[in-house]
Amino acid sequence: SNNFFLLCGPCAIEGEDMALRIAEKVIEITNKLEIPYVFKGSFKKANRSRIDSFTGIGNENALKILKKVSETFDVPTVTDIHEVSDAAMAAEYVDVLQIPAFLVRQTDLVVAAAETGKVVNLKKGQFMSPEAMKHAVQKFKDSGNDKAWITDRGTMFGYQDMIVDFRGIPTMKQYAPVVLDVTHSLQQPNQSAGITGGRPDMIETIARAGVVNNVDGLFIETHFDPANAKSDGANMLHLDNLEKLLTNLVAIRKTVNSL
Amino acid sequence: SNNFFLLCGPCAIEGEDMALRIAEKVIEITNKLEIPYVFKGSFKKANRSRIDSFTGIGNENALKILKKVSETFDVPTVTDIHEVSDAAMAAEYVDVLQIPAFLVRQTDLVVAAAETGKVVNLKKGQFMSPEAMKHAVQKFKDSGNDKAWITDRGTMFGYQDMIVDFRGIPTMKQYAPVVLDVTHSLQQPNQSAGITGGRPDMIETIARAGVVNNVDGLFIETHFDPANAKSDGANMLHLDNLEKLLTNLVAIRKTVNSL
Amino acid sequence: SNNFFLLCGPCAIEGEDMALRIAEKVIEITNKLEIPYVFKGSFKKANRSRIDSFTGIGNENALKILKKVSETFDVPTVTDIHEVSDAAMAAEYVDVLQIPAFLVRQTDLVVAAAETGKVVNLKKGQFMSPEAMKHAVQKFKDSGNDKAWITDRGTMFGYQDMIVDFRGIPTMKQYAPVVLDVTHSLQQPNQSAGITGGRPDMIETIARAGVVNNVDGLFIETHFDPANAKSDGANMLHLDNLEKLLTNLVAIRKTVNSL
Amino acid sequence: SNNFFLLCGPCAIEGEDMALRIAEKVIEITNKLEIPYVFKGSFKKANRSRIDSFTGIGNENALKILKKVSETFDVPTVTDIHEVSDAAMAAEYVDVLQIPAFLVRQTDLVVAAAETGKVVNLKKGQFMSPEAMKHAVQKFKDSGNDKAWITDRGTMFGYQDMIVDFRGIPTMKQYAPVVLDVTHSLQQPNQSAGITGGRPDMIETIARAGVVNNVDGLFIETHFDPANAKSDGANMLHLDNLEKLLTNLVAIRKTVNSL
Repeated sequence: SNNFFLLCGPCAIEGEDMALRIAEKVIEITNKLEIPYVFKGSFKKANRSRIDSFTGIGNENALKILKKVSETFDVPTVTDIHEVSDAAMAAEYVDVLQIPAFLVRQTDLVVAAAETGKVVNLKKGQFMSPEAMKHAVQKFKDSGNDKAWITDRGTMFGYQDMIVDFRGIPTMKQYAPVVLDVTHSLQQPNQSAGITGGRPDMIETIARAGVVNNVDGLFIETHFDPANAKSDGANMLHLDNLEKLLTNLVAIRKTVNSL
Repeated sequence: SNNFFLLCGPCAIEGEDMALRIAEKVIEITNKLEIPYVFKGSFKKANRSRIDSFTGIGNENALKILKKVSETFDVPTVTDIHEVSDAAMAAEYVDVLQIPAFLVRQTDLVVAAAETGKVVNLKKGQFMSPEAMKHAVQKFKDSGNDKAWITDRGTMFGYQDMIVDFRGIPTMKQYAPVVLDVTHSLQQPNQSAGITGGRPDMIETIARAGVVNNVDGLFIETHFDPANAKSDGANMLHLDNLEKLLTNLVAIRKTVNSL
Repeated sequence: SNNFFLLCGPCAIEGEDMALRIAEKVIEITNKLEIPYVFKGSFKKANRSRIDSFTGIGNENALKILKKVSETFDVPTVTDIHEVSDAAMAAEYVDVLQIPAFLVRQTDLVVAAAETGKVVNLKKGQFMSPEAMKHAVQKFKDSGNDKAWITDRGTMFGYQDMIVDFRGIPTMKQYAPVVLDVTHSLQQPNQSAGITGGRPDMIETIARAGVVNNVDGLFIETHFDPANAKSDGANMLHLDNLEKLLTNLVAIRKTVNSL
Repeated sequence: SNNFFLLCGPCAIEGEDMALRIAEKVIEITNKLEIPYVFKGSFKKANRSRIDSFTGIGNENALKILKKVSETFDVPTVTDIHEVSDAAMAAEYVDVLQIPAFLVRQTDLVVAAAETGKVVNLKKGQFMSPEAMKHAVQKFKDSGNDKAWITDRGTMFGYQDMIVDFRGIPTMKQYAPVVLDVTHSLQQPNQSAGITGGRPDMIETIARAGVVNNVDGLFIETHFDPANAKSDGANMLHLDNLEKLLTNLVAIRKTVNSL
């Protein structure tokens, strides 16, 4: 189809029950709306602002849950990696590897991810121009893998705000399929308490602007109880609001496809 | 209708023939597409980077041409004002006064515009947050006029680039109808030659993102020969490309209206 | 001498007594430290965020007080102008005219200021690069006056913060003598209450960085009671702290002059 | 002494001869000027924009050269680490470990560095506020090591420029000794060729502004042939210019110490 695809799930894998519960609900919606779906969950949160923040339930535990989601529902999965040694390990459990935005300039990590042969989702650094992603994709391809995606997750705007530059979508589509991460694009970092804030009221605004501009995929973190999620509660979409959002976006994409 | 309205015309009034020619063509298109139309033209370019840049054909000459366009085609017109004394003068010739972005913090100018009783289009300063426009609108209303519009024309991003923050549309719609100026939002200021650059290839990207988010109006500068226009040639849309652009945008807005 | 000069005084002329009291105290300090001094006061605050903010005591009243300060203490004075007609009027009362940062791209205003034959202090727009001030100075010189100064008052950094780019000092010294406005460089604009905030604790940090880099002048707003000043209280230096600050800065400049 | 200390050396260890040659010359200067000195060299360049850029001569080779420099001249050394496993390895060869700016949010890396017991230099991310470094230092101290330094290497300003916010020096001195990296603060990233540009003409401007504000240390990359250096040639100071620069800075610091 000409629809966008969706990377969606909780920020972190907090346990098996929550992962399966979220996957089941998202699949019900994406099946109805004919949206290709990839279940997303981090096996480890590596860059929390504070050391007492939740970082995960153990790497192997979390990766096994990702595998279980995949097998239970027959959906592909995506998770992010942080060190070279994570690449081969995670590749045994998931279908898509993701390079976090802070790490996309680390050549060894990009090369290690490429060498797994998996699809790899390269997140544009908050400090990078859309044009600079050309070099990240080139490094990746030079490692013998041409299945790169690029994800835009916003750009620093002053110290405590992020902004999405929609000129980046047509620019980066020249290099690889482009995903718009509506969750992290709405972060407000460097807040004084050491906890990243956000603007979840703007999720549909940002998502619409991406879909109307032919973004290839969307990345949305969701939870059935964002206020009690162990990370990124400030920006996750409540699972109850996902169907209405996606229904609107699919209608917009259909119109765009007809132009 | 639920369609967006359009402020459109050349950057500057260079003469009567060109003004009538542009107006006639735009009206033909907007009539077909049922887009409420306001003819736009500056009677004076007051803030050029260099003193040898074109600044106009004379205030009264240009204002009379705006009047002629209005009478010839029965369309409202808009022009920008720069000093207190311009307000009453321009109000005799046009229907909508516009406060340039650099000047929207000048209280006397906003008050003088308000006191004409006309609709006034307040352009958000490139250095202002969407939220700060609340205060500009409040000053205007405190002067006894509640017919304000707000126009977003982008925000400074570093020294030589601008970015459109689409979070600003729902934010500013709380204060007044919001117009998206796709022409100036794509400027690239402070270039070394003293001539502002631009990204006209991104006009449709920015316009779609606005229309899909229910912006009330669009502002587009157009010319039948942008390369030889006397100002802002770097960003004006070629008149030949206007109909296709607007056709796409109207289709998107119709879908959005149905959601 | 090789010392920096100082533009200093209250934000706005609130009355004769306060103006004379501030001038007398500053002169006592600058005489002791051999700092060339220009008394600064605005006769009108033209760009307040809110309409209920203090805007002045009447143009003529305030200008006469500036004249009185000048005559009483035999010091030059500086004030800012906002419309073309202000230029000739203010030039009858003061020695230096100042173009506010928001207005430095308004060609007519720059030309009118130049035509008075006075020294004119062009403030770099918060939205301008240091390099772009070359064009502002050129416009000024093309109007037959070569007595321009450039003042840096910081650059927008995100919506709610400003930053001083010290690369601008050597850059702009190529075009004209450069003044560093430590008061407004520390503003934090676009705060939600419509009242500009600030970081007065950083005045000495910014001033030292300017003086050690051979800035030609400093601009400092001061008041004997900043908390009750009618404008810009958030950033003005308490008059009691001025002598210690300037003493440190003069010692630094002497060392720099010896290198 | 009350002097600043200096981290200085080539960007990358290209070989033993060049390392010894640079160290010898810098030591001659710092001995004369009584500047505590730490020899700096990267054993690996991990985040080059392009895959064909030079990344190093082999980790062990380069680390042994760092050790040789240390033993030959009895100076401490510093190098940067990129993965958890680098921490213990590099700690066997050098005295100070450095966390690159892109990686300072990676908790595991900061913890691994802390656990070596070495002094660790945490570089402020280009995307972080000075205040956010409080959390990085706290993570470090929570790992049982209180010998952290913070280095400012500039902050993103638009896509292609960096700016140094000197308010950050007094702010970050509350958390740990602060070093100013004048070399990387002057980078101009995201250039279209995939090669980072720079403004080496501004080195002294930035360094003076730091020294006059009591920065604890300076970080300067130098080479006897910057144009032919294998990385960062755009910003490295020519070794021939180091003595004059440091002489000026020491004179400034002495004056500041006397205030």
